[in-house]
Amino acid sequence: MFQTKSKITLSSNTPDDFIKAILSNCTSIKLPKSEFILKRGDAQSKFYYVQKGLLRYYSIDEKGKEHILQFAPEGWFISDRQSACLNLKSDFFIDALEDSELMMISEAYIINLTKSNQEFLELNNKLLQNHIRQLQNRINQLLSYTAEERYLEFVKTYPDILLRVPQWMVASYLGITPESLSRVRKELAEKNQKKK
Amino acid sequence: MFQTKSKITLSSNTPDDFIKAILSNCTSIKLPKSEFILKRGDAQSKFYYVQKGLLRYYSIDEKGKEHILQFAPEGWFISDRQSACLNLKSDFFIDALEDSELMMISEAYIINLTKSNQEFLELNNKLLQNHIRQLQNRINQLLSYTAEERYLEFVKTYPDILLRVPQWMVASYLGITPESLSRVRKELAEKNQKKK
Repeated sequence: MFQTKSKITLSSNTPDDFIKAILSNCTSIKLPKSEFILKRGDAQSKFYYVQKGLLRYYSIDEKGKEHILQFAPEGWFISDRQSACLNLKSDFFIDALEDSELMMISEAYIINLTKSNQEFLELNNKLLQNHIRQLQNRINQLLSYTAEERYLEFVKTYPDILLRVPQWMVASYLGITPESLSRVRKELAEKNQKKK
Repeated sequence: MFQTKSKITLSSNTPDDFIKAILSNCTSIKLPKSEFILKRGDAQSKFYYVQKGLLRYYSIDEKGKEHILQFAPEGWFISDRQSACLNLKSDFFIDALEDSELMMISEAYIINLTKSNQEFLELNNKLLQNHIRQLQNRINQLLSYTAEERYLEFVKTYPDILLRVPQWMVASYLGITPESLSRVRKELAEKNQKKK
């Protein structure tokens, strides 16, 4: 599949028009706020492109706590590779945080394209490589970044969703407590104040 | 590229013979213990397959602390995608923890194969998907697993290297302190003792 879990425009080599042509063959669906497209235990063979709205990809631990691996606002792809590509039951959940409109892309369509279209294959490959790089960077951030550094990275990755999700979800994505997030935001606000 | 940062045998669909045929066209090199194949700032366009020995892929933070993203014992691939696939300067380091023997695979060779061999292209794609899934699982573990759960996962992923690396490196990979790791190991030993 091409770059699920990453914004299309992240790579300057991505021919947006080509992706548009692919999407034009797919089915559009509406997903109301709080509805799911994936739950733990599902085997789900679809990829989704977010045209409008906001989704999230997350796990729930034994204590019932949610851990957010990805947000997907407009222009992002979202899917669960475990089930979509490898036919395994998923460990994760995907739901809508806002009323959303999605383009639904079937695994079969992707496989067909991969076999028949060399251009798509190469694009797909490049986007997968880029996606791996981003995931490695996220792992490095979780291992080595301070709470403040993680927050600043989040703002860069998702500049437009800070006001659209509750603070505890941002903290969940960052792997820090909501209290740490409040402290970081306060300290950054104070720093910015001093600069003025 | 096929699955760097993951063991070849992870997917039952991986034709090992096909990979062997690819490797037979590559150059073999020796890398003595403590020597580097990548340093921060390098632009490195090679992939490496570990035939013998042990390598690690890591970052160093501002305080000089090392954070290990991957170990690569025998049968694993290792590379830095940022530089190998995307021609950017690397943020990471790769060095040998033991005297090692590697097969060196050039990016050019991979690109040629990708263009000329449909079978390779599909294999490559599948392995990239699987690699993404593993990285997502690692992110989920860093966000949601206890120190004990992370350690048990490490033992599953790298069953044969526990006695080959110092404990602080295991702790660094797990994103926990060496003290936490000692505690976890002691508690697990006690649990095992009780079972007997």
